[in-house]
Amino acid sequence: MPKTHRFSIRTRLSYQLGEEGWLLLNLAAIETPAQKILSESIRNNRGIAFRKHAVQKNTTRFHGIAAPAGLLDISYEAEVERRISGFSEPESCPESPLIDLPHEVVRFLYPSRYCESDKLVRMAAKKFGDLQPGHERVAGICNWIYLNIDYRPGITDAHTSAVECLTLRAGVCRDFAHLGVTFCRAMGIPARYCSGYAYRLPLPDFHAFFEVWLGGRWCYYDATRLAPQHGFILVGSGHDAADTSVATMSSSVQLESMEIAVDKLTPGAVDFASVPVAF
Amino acid sequence: MPKTHRFSIRTRLSYQLGEEGWLLLNLAAIETPAQKILSESIRNNRGIAFRKHAVQKNTTRFHGIAAPAGLLDISYEAEVERRISGFSEPESCPESPLIDLPHEVVRFLYPSRYCESDKLVRMAAKKFGDLQPGHERVAGICNWIYLNIDYRPGITDAHTSAVECLTLRAGVCRDFAHLGVTFCRAMGIPARYCSGYAYRLPLPDFHAFFEVWLGGRWCYYDATRLAPQHGFILVGSGHDAADTSVATMSSSVQLESMEIAVDKLTPGAVDFASVPVAF
Amino acid sequence: MPKTHRFSIRTRLSYQLGEEGWLLLNLAAIETPAQKILSESIRNNRGIAFRKHAVQKNTTRFHGIAAPAGLLDISYEAEVERRISGFSEPESCPESPLIDLPHEVVRFLYPSRYCESDKLVRMAAKKFGDLQPGHERVAGICNWIYLNIDYRPGITDAHTSAVECLTLRAGVCRDFAHLGVTFCRAMGIPARYCSGYAYRLPLPDFHAFFEVWLGGRWCYYDATRLAPQHGFILVGSGHDAADTSVATMSSSVQLESMEIAVDKLTPGAVDFASVPVAF
Amino acid sequence: MPKTHRFSIRTRLSYQLGEEGWLLLNLAAIETPAQKILSESIRNNRGIAFRKHAVQKNTTRFHGIAAPAGLLDISYEAEVERRISGFSEPESCPESPLIDLPHEVVRFLYPSRYCESDKLVRMAAKKFGDLQPGHERVAGICNWIYLNIDYRPGITDAHTSAVECLTLRAGVCRDFAHLGVTFCRAMGIPARYCSGYAYRLPLPDFHAFFEVWLGGRWCYYDATRLAPQHGFILVGSGHDAADTSVATMSSSVQLESMEIAVDKLTPGAVDFASVPVAF
Repeated sequence: MPKTHRFSIRTRLSYQLGEEGWLLLNLAAIETPAQKILSESIRNNRGIAFRKHAVQKNTTRFHGIAAPAGLLDISYEAEVERRISGFSEPESCPESPLIDLPHEVVRFLYPSRYCESDKLVRMAAKKFGDLQPGHERVAGICNWIYLNIDYRPGITDAHTSAVECLTLRAGVCRDFAHLGVTFCRAMGIPARYCSGYAYRLPLPDFHAFFEVWLGGRWCYYDATRLAPQHGFILVGSGHDAADTSVATMSSSVQLESMEIAVDKLTPGAVDFASVPVAF
Repeated sequence: MPKTHRFSIRTRLSYQLGEEGWLLLNLAAIETPAQKILSESIRNNRGIAFRKHAVQKNTTRFHGIAAPAGLLDISYEAEVERRISGFSEPESCPESPLIDLPHEVVRFLYPSRYCESDKLVRMAAKKFGDLQPGHERVAGICNWIYLNIDYRPGITDAHTSAVECLTLRAGVCRDFAHLGVTFCRAMGIPARYCSGYAYRLPLPDFHAFFEVWLGGRWCYYDATRLAPQHGFILVGSGHDAADTSVATMSSSVQLESMEIAVDKLTPGAVDFASVPVAF
Repeated sequence: MPKTHRFSIRTRLSYQLGEEGWLLLNLAAIETPAQKILSESIRNNRGIAFRKHAVQKNTTRFHGIAAPAGLLDISYEAEVERRISGFSEPESCPESPLIDLPHEVVRFLYPSRYCESDKLVRMAAKKFGDLQPGHERVAGICNWIYLNIDYRPGITDAHTSAVECLTLRAGVCRDFAHLGVTFCRAMGIPARYCSGYAYRLPLPDFHAFFEVWLGGRWCYYDATRLAPQHGFILVGSGHDAADTSVATMSSSVQLESMEIAVDKLTPGAVDFASVPVAF
Repeated sequence: MPKTHRFSIRTRLSYQLGEEGWLLLNLAAIETPAQKILSESIRNNRGIAFRKHAVQKNTTRFHGIAAPAGLLDISYEAEVERRISGFSEPESCPESPLIDLPHEVVRFLYPSRYCESDKLVRMAAKKFGDLQPGHERVAGICNWIYLNIDYRPGITDAHTSAVECLTLRAGVCRDFAHLGVTFCRAMGIPARYCSGYAYRLPLPDFHAFFEVWLGGRWCYYDATRLAPQHGFILVGSGHDAADTSVATMSSSVQLESMEIAVDKLTPGAVDFASVPVAF
């Protein structure tokens, strides 16, 4: 297994602005210990300078842009190196006593807009309470979601929460990630939602997965099994899709089209993860 | 009007632990430009050392404690000086263009567990869209809540969201604050939920209110009109009650009783705010 | 104003059956004191006999059909005479004391799937409690809905309830009728949901409105103001859209297309109602 | 096993009326093929005549009463004979093709206020789709509920729906019955909610269970396993708890206390049902 992979990302988003408007974009890969940005560019067809918002280490970057009415094409291109960064042993990534959690991790214990973990405490305890704490429990949560929720576009939408997805028993990657986050928080495990790119996703699009605080770091999981985790590129993490959306925009802005391509620049297979991995 | 007031706070919380357990407490006043902690102590009846979690400037502090089975009494006492810190003119606190918001403020635009602002965009625009942006609009939101929602304990509970409160037309300070936050975010104004103490609250308890980003700083508002804002002491602010609860605790812990007393140590009346004020 | 009008209805529904399946159709006009069916036919392209389900007087008729895989065209044609049947004076249609309600009317006091009247008791009392009981109150409810809810297709769907419509402040005729029913029941006024045809509906389709028990009979109301009430043809009434849907069908059946035409066969204008009217 | 049992029921309900008010009571046993009322009386402490609402065969009876301010005691006493009326073979009670359902049964296919069967179609198909249609499937639904939902008072309330109970994984007999009804309807099996009395209920109270249309009649089921079904006395059946509540009353009426006693007057054990049984 190669120790690193290099990927190219090419994203093109076309927006139509009915009048002067603005966008806050959240589509650029971030720099992490396991993810190195070798080159990167973000451009638009109007020659407008982007406002770069302060970058918090290992979390979300925003590119802001205000533009006049008309067509606004955004293109983002990057070359990213991923280092495979799993724990050698699942046993080495235990859950942390809550009282020992770092201050900035505590807030990922709490329910959020699309992850109503307060409602699933009893169900999570019944389903996952007997599993070994740590990686085994989180892997059990992912397996349960994979086996019980149908991956089916068109049933849920941008307002669907984890509990609604659980009731409907269907959803897309966004819903699978919300449900994983929700079950983890319901078990007292800090968890956050991630958006990013994925190599070999069946239909090229943004992808969603989630991170769990195990062994003192954020390890990521994906209950969809749609693409190998070692080919994920992290863009942003947050409470849920509410604060990691690709674009927040003023009311006159409409997405017209989107193209995404993720290619591999190095030889060798990209694997599904069998042990906890971190960015 | 005096320029400052000094208040004393005495809080006593009694918990029963069925077995060994832990609590993360969020009950200590924070230091802000307008709020100075003159003295402070937190104690427990078991002589256990609290773990103090990193304090983010102007936001939430946590005191963690792990304790054996039995009764756990927590007492917090503080003397706090509040400086009255309003803008002289409401006109001087405009709404900010979203694209200019500081990075750490952006996340308070998004919906959260108890503040489903994505659902109220149309209603907020109808009710408050014609008001002057800034203080007038937020004051209009507070007035609408005060006039349309009954302050009535026992109808909502710790799982009630802003939309549910709006449907029921009744709630307590927690619900009033959630609804204020939700309408603001639905109008594109960053808003966060605050917990704290309040002088002259009719029934001594923790209080909830909310902060809005106006004129480049967080100004606070209270739609309940239960107590004068210049007598508020800020404990914590966050997305909503989910991440500012007084205590997060393990499952064996039960609250037995609570006593809170807020007294004024300086002469002179404590006023309701007529202009935007900040901590 | 003419005392009667005659209308022709032509409905064509095309279904695709992936395999053998069945439909329960609820699309035929019913006979009422004010609505006389002059002629009527229901046909299908497969020559299959319809099963006619027992017809309850003044309520819903069902036509059942089981069909093999393939295309199934249903056509319904009718000529219907509507007699204008208003009360001469709104004052003559008071609300009934609940204890005096006929047994079969009582059940329309209770909440149903899409009309959660138990949640809106307080809001209804605040908004409509000071209005004169009877027609004035129901007219007030219709006016409030007309003024506060946007008629906007595409925001709600077949699972949207009255409370959800109220939160979103938008919907279609189905949602307007649900909300009218819900506010009435919340005020202790029996109300039921109606489906039917309407002359001069801007876009030809089935229409939805609602009936309220006033003055000892079911009077109908429509908060959408889309078409004159004297041109409504009643098909069915029930608790809400759950039990008055045009078609209940097995899982392999898909609606392919629908055409509806309602024409007037008699001269003279068809009016909006200014007094309570009944079928 | 004795072929019949006789039971005595004594119910006392005390209400406080703040001002003149009224109640519609739904607490009297009904006459069915398997349930014979040997004697019966309903009285109140004010000597007011009850208004008896028309009794639909095998469904709900209402006793209406209007009373002045003050204490209103209602007492109901009855002696009822239950004949054990099971099918000899579960195989003899198949599900009916929907197109063949009697008209008055069709409406129990549709979702209702507390039984949102439209939301659980996919989940029901996954859990129960492979079971043998008829008794085996309904028994499987009851078993699933018994094994996955905790019988736990105090978590749900009078506004809790089946989907909410399913999320919380806890409830009382009302919620168990709602969930049973909901899963059945989601599978296309007509089902209705029942209220009644039960011999040997651990805590004397009204009980809730549900009926399913199998083999051309309503067979009843109970997922709580709290008391033997052959000791159930049927009071009313309807869409859900919304239209079978013990009392609908004006706003000034408060329930003060309730006493219920169900005793057996004949020797021999009262059994749990092992085959489908009907009233």
